[in-house]
Amino acid sequence: MVAALQKEMLAAIEEELHHQVERLDHSPFQPYHEMLTYHMGWTVEGASANTSGKRTRPLMLLLCAACGKQPYDWHRALPAAAAIELIHNFTLIHDDIQDNSETRRNRLTVWKKWGVPMGINAGDGLFSIANLAIMDLDRDHNQATILKVNRLLQETCLQLTGGQFMDMSFESQDVVPLDSYWSMISLKTANLISTATEIGAILSGEPDALIMNYKQFGHYLGLAFQIKDDILGIWGTESMTGKSISSDLVSGKKTLPILYGLQKKGLFYNRWVKGQIKSEEVPLLAEQLSKEGAKVNALEAFDKVNEMTKEQLRFISPEGPAGMALHDLVSQLEERVA
Amino acid sequence: MVAALQKEMLAAIEEELHHQVERLDHSPFQPYHEMLTYHMGWTVEGASANTSGKRTRPLMLLLCAACGKQPYDWHRALPAAAAIELIHNFTLIHDDIQDNSETRRNRLTVWKKWGVPMGINAGDGLFSIANLAIMDLDRDHNQATILKVNRLLQETCLQLTGGQFMDMSFESQDVVPLDSYWSMISLKTANLISTATEIGAILSGEPDALIMNYKQFGHYLGLAFQIKDDILGIWGTESMTGKSISSDLVSGKKTLPILYGLQKKGLFYNRWVKGQIKSEEVPLLAEQLSKEGAKVNALEAFDKVNEMTKEQLRFISPEGPAGMALHDLVSQLEERVA
Repeated sequence: MVAALQKEMLAAIEEELHHQVERLDHSPFQPYHEMLTYHMGWTVEGASANTSGKRTRPLMLLLCAACGKQPYDWHRALPAAAAIELIHNFTLIHDDIQDNSETRRNRLTVWKKWGVPMGINAGDGLFSIANLAIMDLDRDHNQATILKVNRLLQETCLQLTGGQFMDMSFESQDVVPLDSYWSMISLKTANLISTATEIGAILSGEPDALIMNYKQFGHYLGLAFQIKDDILGIWGTESMTGKSISSDLVSGKKTLPILYGLQKKGLFYNRWVKGQIKSEEVPLLAEQLSKEGAKVNALEAFDKVNEMTKEQLRFISPEGPAGMALHDLVSQLEERVA
Repeated sequence: MVAALQKEMLAAIEEELHHQVERLDHSPFQPYHEMLTYHMGWTVEGASANTSGKRTRPLMLLLCAACGKQPYDWHRALPAAAAIELIHNFTLIHDDIQDNSETRRNRLTVWKKWGVPMGINAGDGLFSIANLAIMDLDRDHNQATILKVNRLLQETCLQLTGGQFMDMSFESQDVVPLDSYWSMISLKTANLISTATEIGAILSGEPDALIMNYKQFGHYLGLAFQIKDDILGIWGTESMTGKSISSDLVSGKKTLPILYGLQKKGLFYNRWVKGQIKSEEVPLLAEQLSKEGAKVNALEAFDKVNEMTKEQLRFISPEGPAGMALHDLVSQLEERVA
């Protein structure tokens, strides 16, 4: 029943996304439209079920809209779910340019395929479509709710650019304090998830006090996702065997364990400041970082935010199959860590 | 009285813009905030009264809001005026990256000063601030009006990206039909001006039929601005003396007279296809283009859209000092052409 609901929601999200992006599916914009459908994972070479991303954010929004005490048909929230996913994808297109990333989900990035100028424009277009998608809540919600949700979404977008600014600034900073790192991932990563869970609760008519719990639930869940990513980015199976060149040690990304290691100013720090790390160095350096306490520190951080996620979920006490799905998602998060 | 009103409006626009951009004026975003205030022409080296742009779009919005038969205090429309100007500036920041332009108003462009990644982010940030600014209409308008105006603004933003897509596509096309050129400048240039005049009329409560006249007025005015720019870009005084390297002949921009000349497949065409034009060639080539009929054609096009602008203004028959200011603006447009 839980799996069936998730499957139904994911299909409905995909349909709504197609519907929104179709705004550009007419002459003379077809080649432009194709850049967007390519990025969304639907068309052009290499498109498959694995090229679309997991649609985690819109799924969270719908589950939060469907698990409350008030009866609420989650289909009504689809325009907001689509808007959240479109915003996420707009930031991915621009991020890929900013990070100089040539591939995403095993395909060329938009800028790599069509050039930086078209890539910037494609991101701007998805942002605009997202801003129109959220207005489609007027199919089924009152004006005060739409304005409230839109303002929240736009505030989140501005904060995302603030998080991105911090993240890009870190690259040229020798010392990044750990609390700056937490601020950055709160703004850049957890933000859109907490806005998704908050919007779900607003749309379904949950009381204000409880809406804050939904928001906090999304916030801690987003932080937990990020810290798990940070841990797997260094001590994930591939990294340990040195097979992967996608280790955060090689890319030089300043994640939580790396910042912890840099603060220690030990052997890890000495190697890091000497220049880019080669993939054959990864197993030994990952072990060194672990010896210096970075892994224990990251695992403790994960446990802490994971506990807070579960605490907020207890406050919410979500009901029905959507509630069970939320519990399942949180349980899955704990898997494969450590 | 007209000059006093315009001066008062321009000061109020600048104040509202400051107020909106101040959303980022706090730690840890100060360096990010400075990128935006630099681009807006307020801060950092070279900032002066001439670095801010003319604020034509927000001024048109306020004048259209103030010239109707219903009494309406134009100060109420300031959040919309700011939103329009912020959207315009977001597109300028991204355009400068896309066109590889190193200077704007005699200062380095944002990307040239802070790098492409920060430039992309600064544009995204201004877009987000614009989307929040428009929501501030709730100080003084009902919810239905705000939703209507926001949807119009977002549709315009999507069309702007469509126009930008066309413009960028032209660069790699040997043959650009003239009607594609008109579509492109309608979407990219006239669009935001017609949305400005339309929003002015919506906010002041003009009847629906008349709102369409305001929209058309802005549309033709925007086209007239662009065609005038196209003419001056080749036969403006500087270009004729060959002193300026900013001639459209040198930059290779496919403007109306150039597309007309290319269609003729004469001497101008033969030179154009051989590669970039040097500034010392400009006087002779401008004359050649004129001989082939491109100047007469562009002047006729200008007269046509200028006539249509004035026709729409007669339908509107704007009143009071704001009405006089609109008439003055249209008269100024006719100066220096030909």
